[in-house]
Amino acid sequence: MTDGQDAFAYAFIDSQREDRTGYPEAVYCLGKTLDQAEAVIIRMREQGLPVLGTKAAAALGERICRRFPDGAYDPVARLLTVGKFREAEDRKGLVTVVAAGTSDLPIAREAALSAEFLGSRVELIADVGVAGIHRLFNRLQDIRQARAVIAVAGMEGALAGVIAGLVRAPVIAAPTSVGYGASFGGLAALLGMLTACAPGVSVVNIDNGFGAAYQANLINQAASRV
Amino acid sequence: MTDGQDAFAYAFIDSQREDRTGYPEAVYCLGKTLDQAEAVIIRMREQGLPVLGTKAAAALGERICRRFPDGAYDPVARLLTVGKFREAEDRKGLVTVVAAGTSDLPIAREAALSAEFLGSRVELIADVGVAGIHRLFNRLQDIRQARAVIAVAGMEGALAGVIAGLVRAPVIAAPTSVGYGASFGGLAALLGMLTACAPGVSVVNIDNGFGAAYQANLINQAASRV
Amino acid sequence: MTDGQDAFAYAFIDSQREDRTGYPEAVYCLGKTLDQAEAVIIRMREQGLPVLGTKAAAALGERICRRFPDGAYDPVARLLTVGKFREAEDRKGLVTVVAAGTSDLPIAREAALSAEFLGSRVELIADVGVAGIHRLFNRLQDIRQARAVIAVAGMEGALAGVIAGLVRAPVIAAPTSVGYGASFGGLAALLGMLTACAPGVSVVNIDNGFGAAYQANLINQAASRV
Amino acid sequence: MTDGQDAFAYAFIDSQREDRTGYPEAVYCLGKTLDQAEAVIIRMREQGLPVLGTKAAAALGERICRRFPDGAYDPVARLLTVGKFREAEDRKGLVTVVAAGTSDLPIAREAALSAEFLGSRVELIADVGVAGIHRLFNRLQDIRQARAVIAVAGMEGALAGVIAGLVRAPVIAAPTSVGYGASFGGLAALLGMLTACAPGVSVVNIDNGFGAAYQANLINQAASRV
Amino acid sequence: MTDGQDAFAYAFIDSQREDRTGYPEAVYCLGKTLDQAEAVIIRMREQGLPVLGTKAAAALGERICRRFPDGAYDPVARLLTVGKFREAEDRKGLVTVVAAGTSDLPIAREAALSAEFLGSRVELIADVGVAGIHRLFNRLQDIRQARAVIAVAGMEGALAGVIAGLVRAPVIAAPTSVGYGASFGGLAALLGMLTACAPGVSVVNIDNGFGAAYQANLINQAASRV
Amino acid sequence: MTDGQDAFAYAFIDSQREDRTGYPEAVYCLGKTLDQAEAVIIRMREQGLPVLGTKAAAALGERICRRFPDGAYDPVARLLTVGKFREAEDRKGLVTVVAAGTSDLPIAREAALSAEFLGSRVELIADVGVAGIHRLFNRLQDIRQARAVIAVAGMEGALAGVIAGLVRAPVIAAPTSVGYGASFGGLAALLGMLTACAPGVSVVNIDNGFGAAYQANLINQAASRV
Amino acid sequence: MTDGQDAFAYAFIDSQREDRTGYPEAVYCLGKTLDQAEAVIIRMREQGLPVLGTKAAAALGERICRRFPDGAYDPVARLLTVGKFREAEDRKGLVTVVAAGTSDLPIAREAALSAEFLGSRVELIADVGVAGIHRLFNRLQDIRQARAVIAVAGMEGALAGVIAGLVRAPVIAAPTSVGYGASFGGLAALLGMLTACAPGVSVVNIDNGFGAAYQANLINQAASRV
Amino acid sequence: MTDGQDAFAYAFIDSQREDRTGYPEAVYCLGKTLDQAEAVIIRMREQGLPVLGTKAAAALGERICRRFPDGAYDPVARLLTVGKFREAEDRKGLVTVVAAGTSDLPIAREAALSAEFLGSRVELIADVGVAGIHRLFNRLQDIRQARAVIAVAGMEGALAGVIAGLVRAPVIAAPTSVGYGASFGGLAALLGMLTACAPGVSVVNIDNGFGAAYQANLINQAASRV
Repeated sequence: MTDGQDAFAYAFIDSQREDRTGYPEAVYCLGKTLDQAEAVIIRMREQGLPVLGTKAAAALGERICRRFPDGAYDPVARLLTVGKFREAEDRKGLVTVVAAGTSDLPIAREAALSAEFLGSRVELIADVGVAGIHRLFNRLQDIRQARAVIAVAGMEGALAGVIAGLVRAPVIAAPTSVGYGASFGGLAALLGMLTACAPGVSVVNIDNGFGAAYQANLINQAASRV
Repeated sequence: MTDGQDAFAYAFIDSQREDRTGYPEAVYCLGKTLDQAEAVIIRMREQGLPVLGTKAAAALGERICRRFPDGAYDPVARLLTVGKFREAEDRKGLVTVVAAGTSDLPIAREAALSAEFLGSRVELIADVGVAGIHRLFNRLQDIRQARAVIAVAGMEGALAGVIAGLVRAPVIAAPTSVGYGASFGGLAALLGMLTACAPGVSVVNIDNGFGAAYQANLINQAASRV
Repeated sequence: MTDGQDAFAYAFIDSQREDRTGYPEAVYCLGKTLDQAEAVIIRMREQGLPVLGTKAAAALGERICRRFPDGAYDPVARLLTVGKFREAEDRKGLVTVVAAGTSDLPIAREAALSAEFLGSRVELIADVGVAGIHRLFNRLQDIRQARAVIAVAGMEGALAGVIAGLVRAPVIAAPTSVGYGASFGGLAALLGMLTACAPGVSVVNIDNGFGAAYQANLINQAASRV
Repeated sequence: MTDGQDAFAYAFIDSQREDRTGYPEAVYCLGKTLDQAEAVIIRMREQGLPVLGTKAAAALGERICRRFPDGAYDPVARLLTVGKFREAEDRKGLVTVVAAGTSDLPIAREAALSAEFLGSRVELIADVGVAGIHRLFNRLQDIRQARAVIAVAGMEGALAGVIAGLVRAPVIAAPTSVGYGASFGGLAALLGMLTACAPGVSVVNIDNGFGAAYQANLINQAASRV
Repeated sequence: MTDGQDAFAYAFIDSQREDRTGYPEAVYCLGKTLDQAEAVIIRMREQGLPVLGTKAAAALGERICRRFPDGAYDPVARLLTVGKFREAEDRKGLVTVVAAGTSDLPIAREAALSAEFLGSRVELIADVGVAGIHRLFNRLQDIRQARAVIAVAGMEGALAGVIAGLVRAPVIAAPTSVGYGASFGGLAALLGMLTACAPGVSVVNIDNGFGAAYQANLINQAASRV
Repeated sequence: MTDGQDAFAYAFIDSQREDRTGYPEAVYCLGKTLDQAEAVIIRMREQGLPVLGTKAAAALGERICRRFPDGAYDPVARLLTVGKFREAEDRKGLVTVVAAGTSDLPIAREAALSAEFLGSRVELIADVGVAGIHRLFNRLQDIRQARAVIAVAGMEGALAGVIAGLVRAPVIAAPTSVGYGASFGGLAALLGMLTACAPGVSVVNIDNGFGAAYQANLINQAASRV
Repeated sequence: MTDGQDAFAYAFIDSQREDRTGYPEAVYCLGKTLDQAEAVIIRMREQGLPVLGTKAAAALGERICRRFPDGAYDPVARLLTVGKFREAEDRKGLVTVVAAGTSDLPIAREAALSAEFLGSRVELIADVGVAGIHRLFNRLQDIRQARAVIAVAGMEGALAGVIAGLVRAPVIAAPTSVGYGASFGGLAALLGMLTACAPGVSVVNIDNGFGAAYQANLINQAASRV
Repeated sequence: MTDGQDAFAYAFIDSQREDRTGYPEAVYCLGKTLDQAEAVIIRMREQGLPVLGTKAAAALGERICRRFPDGAYDPVARLLTVGKFREAEDRKGLVTVVAAGTSDLPIAREAALSAEFLGSRVELIADVGVAGIHRLFNRLQDIRQARAVIAVAGMEGALAGVIAGLVRAPVIAAPTSVGYGASFGGLAALLGMLTACAPGVSVVNIDNGFGAAYQANLINQAASRV
């Protein structure tokens, strides 16, 4: 078998990604062994790229933080960073992450920390699910400050559509796999968000907090450009 | 083949149903030929039973209204009645039917007319979907009068959970097949209602306005007994 | 990231819920860490609210029972309570929980204990699945005493429709994930209950014993108000 | 393209089928043009085979009955026969077809007429769905005479499991596509029958009345052999 | 909560089952705790009933075999018996269990041992999947001796239809969850068996070896009655 | 039944929508009768609101164009407008609609015309599916001018992810129901777009060209604000 | 809207396709209006490209045959050709199309005619489904001549795996939507073919006779190169 | 129970498989116990057959490598071999395995090593997913050398269709279960590959690297015959 017999030889960093899209590649850690993920990260650092690793196990977080002094790991979000794409003082605009319940926090934090990494100022507002909708109304003035809103919710996922009917910013909906039974691993929330009757909602994959953050940050940056 | 060679011989009216459950049998017209449905209805009238026919084609409505002077047919709800289970002046309590959009009206009217037939006073409030949630709030005082609320919604079906977080009465959720694409014939609304994070919601089959009315009427009658 | 950097800051108790709906919030423990769940419960107790925690792990039960003298944990139902919403002597009406098989007991007990917590008198009748339907008939007089019936069943879920054809009270159907193969995690029971040909059935999420109890208690309280 | 350029050349009758399995081939008419179906039937008659055509359109029925004096067509069952596999006086044993509702009659009749064609005596008992279960009990003595029972039901399909818990004969369950919404074209009934908690049930395809009849007739013939 | 506060009180043996259906109840062990399952078995033995327990964990097998000298446990089939419904010398007829691959053996053995327990003579023929169809043909004369055939297969489940086209006995198809990817936990095999183009196949739940055996034994006993 | 006995009384225009979200309500015509849709449109025009009607039948288009001199109807897009939200000369920014194939044109045009109506300049680039990817590369410089890209594709929906890896603007993915078989009405495209490995993609409902346009226009307007 | 206001302007022929892949583009006619399809075909002919149109309505076939003297239309296969990619005398190798039943002929003919158009000699063998497997064995020597086999089957789709266990050539499996009920529009056949236990099978989309032919022709041409 | 009471007796090697199809049987290890798998392998070695075991646990790999000096186990691919079907120097042609991401390597290596075992020269090219499509273009000249291409991808699976539009060789698509949420265990990739708009793609089961290799090797061998 040509092209490297060993399993760690395959990590061709997409180093031109920033030129094409404005942002470097992120590392999806779920299907990779610790060794594979580490190899990718080392290579990216050698090229001077900041690293954002999603769905990272605690063991990987530990290993990377030991090796890189500027490594950081958030166990709730299972998010790993080495370096930062943009410094805190250079962040601009505002992305607001709104989460329905406490159980949605892992994905909400994944979204919030990712958006910060990419260069947005971020506010995280949790526990404002539609079952007690006054809590959402209490925070509406804050939410209306955002240039892009990320709505994180499992179960019936109604939060996204309700917010989109109340604000002027685009809503990026991140369904979560929170729930059981007819939640079917986030399918109920996903379908609910896709069929929200309010326009101004677009949806990312179930539990994809990073994807929501990436899209919201793109929108926020463009709207904050001047 | 014993037991009647012809296809119209099979209509064994469940004439003891009222003794057991308090209400006579309804006639589900969808899979029946005009002749079969008519035969069932004639037999019920011969036994003095009031008739409620659901999912009835216009042709059946016409035929029955021609034969029975007290027949009535609602083309939007596709609901057929001959006689009434309870007279208008004997209706009590209040069932409120809340519909998300104009496209949900066929099922909302099926529910409203069925609940009236069975003996409830009914109010129908339409076009209060969560995309413009202030419309729902404008009608909240009215909705709070109900002893049972029927929430009719297609698409993401969020209406049921939002209402259940705002009122004291049980909410019977009737998902509709309104919508396209990821609505999957009402599946999105159904799953959304089943996984509503507010308790106080229970769900009937997609497009089953009659079933929602039957359950809401049971609840209303019990609460209005005294 | 504004609004609290640490993961335990997000527990905004919906303290007005009782005003709006008559009942305090319940705590869904499944997606929460032990620390998060405990923080929520402490805050609720500080506000004088009784606590009902569903899908609670044994470790959480233990921890809470150690901290609160009036804590209680049922390992079969995975239900946790601290305090009671209504004292045993103030319970009224009757909610009957009917379970198809021994394997459905966890959800049946979740329903039964929840309905008691919320203020209903409760009877639990198990092992009356439709495979040996005489067992159901033997208990029919008892079941007919109820002001609301909760039917708990996995596999084909036929129990709900059969009972609804025999009693005058509304039936709240709680499908369970009991079974294997074509049960598809409770989907078969869920669909069976939604399409039951007898009206008078409405359905909650798979394995949602608490949701069934909440709805049944609402119905029972209204019917017992006088 | 070798092997016949025209579309009607492909009808290789499985003429040895009776030797292997005891019964000749049936003709599934749904995907065939009138011409194709007719060509198959003519060829079978040339070989002296009796013909059973399932899911046959009225137009095909008409055409065949015009051509063959011993042709017969049942428009409810959409079943077409030319000749008979066994004469009425040679039929033995008893297959009982039990149907839940009037809307299930097309499949129930397909089953009943097919079983007669294949050589069983048949009784058809309709309108005994589980929503009014006393109707089933009223007919139980009759049903217990059968050597094989075919249970035909749409919606939740509970009939099969209830009967299997009450009789000694095997139950062949034929789910139908009767119903709407969460029936999902018969899926609810199919899953319900597959997960019936009573053993002694085996299931054929949705709307496959012929398949149920074939299996029930095999069982009945074997049990009646002596 | 009336009706027994503790979780082990619910084991109402369906002791009249044998009168109604000819066979005693089987014990489905999967959702039961060791204590619950043991309690049920003890009660059945007190009533003199033979016990067949399906989907039994090894720990339960051990515990029961320690307590009952006539207990037996098969770890491959995860089947537990205490006593026998019919003695080996009283078994009659022949049920043949045909399994597609070695991975299907757990379900095939569950079927074979269950059918023996219930009173059939049984032959088990394995490794005759359709990928090497000559292996099936080599055993065809043996298979043709059976009064009922059980076809056990995962993956595409084609075995059932192929056999049904070759023999005169009814085929009971038992799909297994063997396979990965598009097997979707046995769904592919289940659908394949339901849509087999050969009649003479009826299907039980995925991995339900006992259910297949029960049905095959009913058929075999009736055919062997004389 | 209170609240208007006739079916056309329910059209409560959400007239404050523009205040909350910046844009007036659109009219979803699919589930409405001609009379209902017309009534809604008349009421909106009376309030001086511009009208955008989606999924409008040709008959409705004709009727509205006859009544309103400034009505317009596009039969490919099934889009109906009366008035314009923003005049052509006031449009700013650029939304580019990229369609995979000719069969995707109805949804692509729905998106393009909707975005124009809402105030964006729009370019529509069709027939650049990934099967001949050089066609996409030929147009890349044009696509890179856009402030938001709408990717319209059925079948495998790969277009969205490929573009997102090549441009700096956010991509709004609109899956279409184009295709057959395993397309499952757009499900394949929907899932493909949700799981695109390139970030910078968010997804709207299947065939929801308007929803994609609304979101893209929001993004474009914010980015063009200065 | 730039880039052509009218709906027929979008037909950018992928004229370099033959250079890249060896074969010109085919025209998928299903989602195109007659005018759009005709416009594409005219443009292809202007460029001297032979045309293969799949899923073409009879009306399109007629219109094209009227316009082009070398046009041909097969109503069973719904296949349209103008010109030929390779002349009959230049065809080489052998692709054998094996169809399970008469109802599978439309897809089988689509495959056969497409493979001829692309340059293969083709043999079509129909009515050899696994329900009467001797028919398949009777033709085995013929099938073994093929350099690639296309197996066309609906229902359980077992044909592909059985053939792959008997021949040396690769089998391209084309599931069809033939069947009803649990066929779920070809899903059963698709899953069955994907999970076939014999290797040497790869699968194309449901009803995609052209896709199967394209793949089989590629294989055949490579194997016949010398 | 006839035919061997113990569970290890069932391993009837399909020893004529090579005569019929050109290749010996492979061993699917997933559902087998270590003892069963070992027994099968020993028997195959006794008959002089080379062994390829797929989805083999590390423990099985270890055990077999201890027993057979020519055993080899790849822990990433979970592939086990004893002997080789063709010696390295006898391999011919070229199969190129193209993998979208590092997480797809287990299946890509399973494919690559299997194709080598069966007699093909193999090149493995990884990390060329469509999110950074220039990486694919950089390797296009290499990929065009192959006589068959295996495209391995999870998530949206777009790689297969993109490659098929660029090369002349057939593409065998192997979807993987890599991904989360709406990947649904590989379903998104599977559907995407089946509906790829470029012809020249055929698909094997999710995660079936061996199946892809088998098919690609068949094609490669035929094309390299001379």
